[in-house]
Amino acid sequence: MAGNSFGTLFKIHTFGESHGEAIGVVIDGCPAGLNIDMDFLQSELDRRKPGQSHITSPRKESDEAKIISGVFNGQTMGTPICIIIANENPKEKDYTYLKDTFRPSHADFTYEKKYGTRDYRGGGRSSARETAARVAAGAIAKMLLKKEQIHITAFVTRVGPIQLTKDIHTLDLSIAQNNSIKCPDSATAAEMIAYIEDIKKDGDTVGGIIRCHIDHAPAGLGEPVFDKLHANLAKAMMSINAAHGFEYGSGFEGACTLGSQNNDAITKNFGTKTNNSGGILGGISTGDQIYFNVAFKPVATILKPQQSIDRAGNEITLQNEGRHDPCVLPRAVPIVEAMAALVMIDMLLQQKAIQ
Amino acid sequence: MAGNSFGTLFKIHTFGESHGEAIGVVIDGCPAGLNIDMDFLQSELDRRKPGQSHITSPRKESDEAKIISGVFNGQTMGTPICIIIANENPKEKDYTYLKDTFRPSHADFTYEKKYGTRDYRGGGRSSARETAARVAAGAIAKMLLKKEQIHITAFVTRVGPIQLTKDIHTLDLSIAQNNSIKCPDSATAAEMIAYIEDIKKDGDTVGGIIRCHIDHAPAGLGEPVFDKLHANLAKAMMSINAAHGFEYGSGFEGACTLGSQNNDAITKNFGTKTNNSGGILGGISTGDQIYFNVAFKPVATILKPQQSIDRAGNEITLQNEGRHDPCVLPRAVPIVEAMAALVMIDMLLQQKAIQ
Amino acid sequence: MAGNSFGTLFKIHTFGESHGEAIGVVIDGCPAGLNIDMDFLQSELDRRKPGQSHITSPRKESDEAKIISGVFNGQTMGTPICIIIANENPKEKDYTYLKDTFRPSHADFTYEKKYGTRDYRGGGRSSARETAARVAAGAIAKMLLKKEQIHITAFVTRVGPIQLTKDIHTLDLSIAQNNSIKCPDSATAAEMIAYIEDIKKDGDTVGGIIRCHIDHAPAGLGEPVFDKLHANLAKAMMSINAAHGFEYGSGFEGACTLGSQNNDAITKNFGTKTNNSGGILGGISTGDQIYFNVAFKPVATILKPQQSIDRAGNEITLQNEGRHDPCVLPRAVPIVEAMAALVMIDMLLQQKAIQ
Amino acid sequence: MAGNSFGTLFKIHTFGESHGEAIGVVIDGCPAGLNIDMDFLQSELDRRKPGQSHITSPRKESDEAKIISGVFNGQTMGTPICIIIANENPKEKDYTYLKDTFRPSHADFTYEKKYGTRDYRGGGRSSARETAARVAAGAIAKMLLKKEQIHITAFVTRVGPIQLTKDIHTLDLSIAQNNSIKCPDSATAAEMIAYIEDIKKDGDTVGGIIRCHIDHAPAGLGEPVFDKLHANLAKAMMSINAAHGFEYGSGFEGACTLGSQNNDAITKNFGTKTNNSGGILGGISTGDQIYFNVAFKPVATILKPQQSIDRAGNEITLQNEGRHDPCVLPRAVPIVEAMAALVMIDMLLQQKAIQ
Repeated sequence: MAGNSFGTLFKIHTFGESHGEAIGVVIDGCPAGLNIDMDFLQSELDRRKPGQSHITSPRKESDEAKIISGVFNGQTMGTPICIIIANENPKEKDYTYLKDTFRPSHADFTYEKKYGTRDYRGGGRSSARETAARVAAGAIAKMLLKKEQIHITAFVTRVGPIQLTKDIHTLDLSIAQNNSIKCPDSATAAEMIAYIEDIKKDGDTVGGIIRCHIDHAPAGLGEPVFDKLHANLAKAMMSINAAHGFEYGSGFEGACTLGSQNNDAITKNFGTKTNNSGGILGGISTGDQIYFNVAFKPVATILKPQQSIDRAGNEITLQNEGRHDPCVLPRAVPIVEAMAALVMIDMLLQQKAIQ
Repeated sequence: MAGNSFGTLFKIHTFGESHGEAIGVVIDGCPAGLNIDMDFLQSELDRRKPGQSHITSPRKESDEAKIISGVFNGQTMGTPICIIIANENPKEKDYTYLKDTFRPSHADFTYEKKYGTRDYRGGGRSSARETAARVAAGAIAKMLLKKEQIHITAFVTRVGPIQLTKDIHTLDLSIAQNNSIKCPDSATAAEMIAYIEDIKKDGDTVGGIIRCHIDHAPAGLGEPVFDKLHANLAKAMMSINAAHGFEYGSGFEGACTLGSQNNDAITKNFGTKTNNSGGILGGISTGDQIYFNVAFKPVATILKPQQSIDRAGNEITLQNEGRHDPCVLPRAVPIVEAMAALVMIDMLLQQKAIQ
Repeated sequence: MAGNSFGTLFKIHTFGESHGEAIGVVIDGCPAGLNIDMDFLQSELDRRKPGQSHITSPRKESDEAKIISGVFNGQTMGTPICIIIANENPKEKDYTYLKDTFRPSHADFTYEKKYGTRDYRGGGRSSARETAARVAAGAIAKMLLKKEQIHITAFVTRVGPIQLTKDIHTLDLSIAQNNSIKCPDSATAAEMIAYIEDIKKDGDTVGGIIRCHIDHAPAGLGEPVFDKLHANLAKAMMSINAAHGFEYGSGFEGACTLGSQNNDAITKNFGTKTNNSGGILGGISTGDQIYFNVAFKPVATILKPQQSIDRAGNEITLQNEGRHDPCVLPRAVPIVEAMAALVMIDMLLQQKAIQ
Repeated sequence: MAGNSFGTLFKIHTFGESHGEAIGVVIDGCPAGLNIDMDFLQSELDRRKPGQSHITSPRKESDEAKIISGVFNGQTMGTPICIIIANENPKEKDYTYLKDTFRPSHADFTYEKKYGTRDYRGGGRSSARETAARVAAGAIAKMLLKKEQIHITAFVTRVGPIQLTKDIHTLDLSIAQNNSIKCPDSATAAEMIAYIEDIKKDGDTVGGIIRCHIDHAPAGLGEPVFDKLHANLAKAMMSINAAHGFEYGSGFEGACTLGSQNNDAITKNFGTKTNNSGGILGGISTGDQIYFNVAFKPVATILKPQQSIDRAGNEITLQNEGRHDPCVLPRAVPIVEAMAALVMIDMLLQQKAIQ
């Protein structure tokens, strides 16, 4: 299916290369009558764009979204919504030095193997720039979810060796939006930022973990057996550039405990004592908080010399220069939220169809 | 889409409840002319079925597969292959005691919330019995992959606190098939089995981790951006009952290192010094070994008293009795392989279409 | 996608060859809580089966449907419904004489070209026997539509040169079920039957036209722009064996008139003076009666000598023997209804999702 | 699925309203390495655009296509191709008079019923302007088909009462491109044009029939049983605005003959004496010429007074003014070709996957 679509009833089709004319998305299946809040949509894109702080890429992109179809008089019409985000100065830089080189842990080699050709300008379609289109679509999904009181919040819990160790349920998650690393504990955030500044000096990069909460989702969402709610969340998250791991509920750690420890005792009023299940049982939401973690590898573009080869097969030493993201996690936070929103609205619409 | 289908070109549709007449699968898109090895297909089902050892459920099911369409004179015809696996003695046991009870960490409550009703007999559609259908379909996928020299091997690397610590690349993976826990190191396997025997005495259960290797996959498989090879593997794995986590390549651990540590330097002949990428870059296979881990939570059915409620909302103490799986991991090994095989053959066919 | 699935939310997957073990269907997406009326389901299959009269094939098949999943205590569970219809005496006849022969206007040659092989026993997958599975699925769709008061009636309006010329709106359509050709006018039915008896003596076959009415469909069904209601009906009808034409509303004839003649003037209460639009505008139902015609070619199996070739390319004279359907129209009536029902329930569910 | 997508492997997603910013299409699944001939693409759009002659709308639109993704250095990259066609002067005209009025035989009423709202400016999404996006996508499909020597030609065979009666196989089809009605016989074309000029004077419109030939398609294309080649062609054609009928091969007329008349005798070298099957048997191409007819109703916008109602339910007399298409057939010719090309390339890719 060529892989550029996501969703069943609320469906998105993204397009665009990092250095082409524009990137964008067509959203198909958005119910009619939704008031589009363009300020909110733009603010979501702003959370993802580079140049927000000294721990992300200083590259300046306005990432301004323009809706060219599907919205009339500020409202959705039930018809496809096309959103375009222009690429700025796409030709400003000379990328020909990448034409015949394969960057370690980038997709240069695999795109060429798959397609027999590649757009070598800054990653082309494999660039994380594509995720801006997802954030735009996710913003519209969030507007729909808001009407159902469903709320999604992601935040950074680990950067390299620095881990958020406090009990998350005691924290004010909104604090995460106040610091550049998007961690809901100020002290840990400061440590994380210091660590990133440190490795940045060496031209290095670092990865980590993002946690996401989905609150107030009703029970009954998810389509077993293959489209289990967490299976679709897993796919959604793993489709984000640099994602290397996904776990929900008690995850890898809970897996290594006993059933008597991991089971969630059911209490009066259909509640549970614990929520090791992560708000999902048998692939269907329980009505409890849904939560999961996503691991992101360190950005592959480092400013240190690296061993590689050129197209002719000659060994070369690759030295990237200029701007780079020492840590992509803060910019990935809105992407994680957007993909979660896309899964949730799709599941909501699917459930409406059979009720 | 109701969730019971998986795949794009090599597509499977599973059906059946654990205590209905039968379970089964329709495979659509299998190329014509494949010789069906029924002995192999049955041997794959035997790897999954209960009653193989004292660390899995002693329940006896023959799990005999019968092909009722799509195969003529031992060969596939290009038409849908329907495989039926009868449920034995489905009415032997009285499940009415579960009719008005919700078992902790089972899908009883969520199915009822989703559908307004449920088949309470042994989990119905939410039972892991459904995975037998996947294993049958996966066996056919493996027959196709074998023609392309693609080989898939899964094995257990962790049970509760017991972890395989030896370097996997020094082990003979075929050893895993010789012990009841399916771990490729005999000493670790013995420890794991002893641990399971121990917790079984208490009526408890334990989870753990399965690792899977896909060898000799050609470069170029995977459909960015949403159908990245690892995104589809993640969904495939997370759709297996009890799966709570997925990671590929260096996974969660690698995510918390530096780019200079995690990047795979490219060497002559398009090889790499390390394979932290897990054989996938930008969602497309590199030609290197693909590997990933799947975490399985402990089986929810324990033989200890548990707190729950009945449909009327009264608090009750639930006491399961009889047979149970103290550790589902060895039986999950062929399921992981089957789901991996289904993803790989689908990606292969998709790649053939555009070449 | 291999072509054996139909529908988006109410989805069917059929399988089976005419002379294999069985044919059948998996229905995915049927809402939970529907009471299954097995007598009705069987009666629908009986309308399609051969041996009902002397103008259809005298072949005897019981076509008994068996539901093996998705229904518990007589109700749907929201899980896939698998229905199996066994093939009787599949090996009674020797079909090897067809192994190396290509029958004129049959799919023998094309299946072999497509798949490199074919099940030569009575048409295999290309046999109209597959449509029994559609009728079974359609019966369940009709049960759902009945709850919404949507009613579907098909009947024969033309057989060879004999055409129903009376105004259809003056006829009692239920009369069609009382005669063997399924025409709602007894006099015309008698003419049609006489004509068929006549050409049958020569071993010949004849085609004709079926008209279908869908009554009480609410306004708003259909998914523009590609899944227009009539576009999906067209595909549904044209996917039936032997279908060669589809038209809705004023169809081919109306197309050759003027806009001032063909337009439907809108009257008070959102009615229209005429219904040349066939109850569909812009691909969406108007709330008025939906109606369309389907043309079926004469059955390709005739009992007259025909010119053909064998696999080696030698010219041969083919002489079919034994039982055949001189006119397939009466048996196609329930198939047309079933396919219409499948389209309508799918559109209803899709509309529910966005409302 | 919201209906704005078409195709399985070569998939298009169209978007845009007639008077919004732009219309366009995202093509997903186009193989990499295709040289894009922009002149050809634009010439295809020019064949569809209004203002070409006095028998079509004098409205001037440049319909200039711009590719904003998926093409680099003139070649496809295997990534989604987004083509944008700007709407010119979208606000030049005041459409508010249509806001509360429902035009006879237009989709105004049904869109409002479906979505609870509508873009009343010139039809919005229901406007045939959407088909420009299909023609652009079809042009790319044609470039791929050309490499396989598959050629598609459509032409007008009937306008109201004027019918092309000459044997089509004796005509030079390229003549159709030389006259404004696109009929391959100059004398008939002149009659058709005279007829249209005549009814145009009255402010009326007229429909008719387009025939399409697909030459040199290899045997083996089509995916039974639901995605039969002609079933997908039927859906493709019926999804075009104003299409009311589809038939292939001997169609409605052949349906009313005898099997001995309609069957195609097979001759040496796997040819056939006749081609009543229209190049398709069992839903799979035979290798012979594929041909079909599509009926288009007269354009609903006439310049005569018509009876209708307003939103409040009051009876009104509607009087359209200004420019209109007296006969849409010549402009529908490239749309029919485009949709046929989209079906054929999709079937070709699907066949490649299983070979």
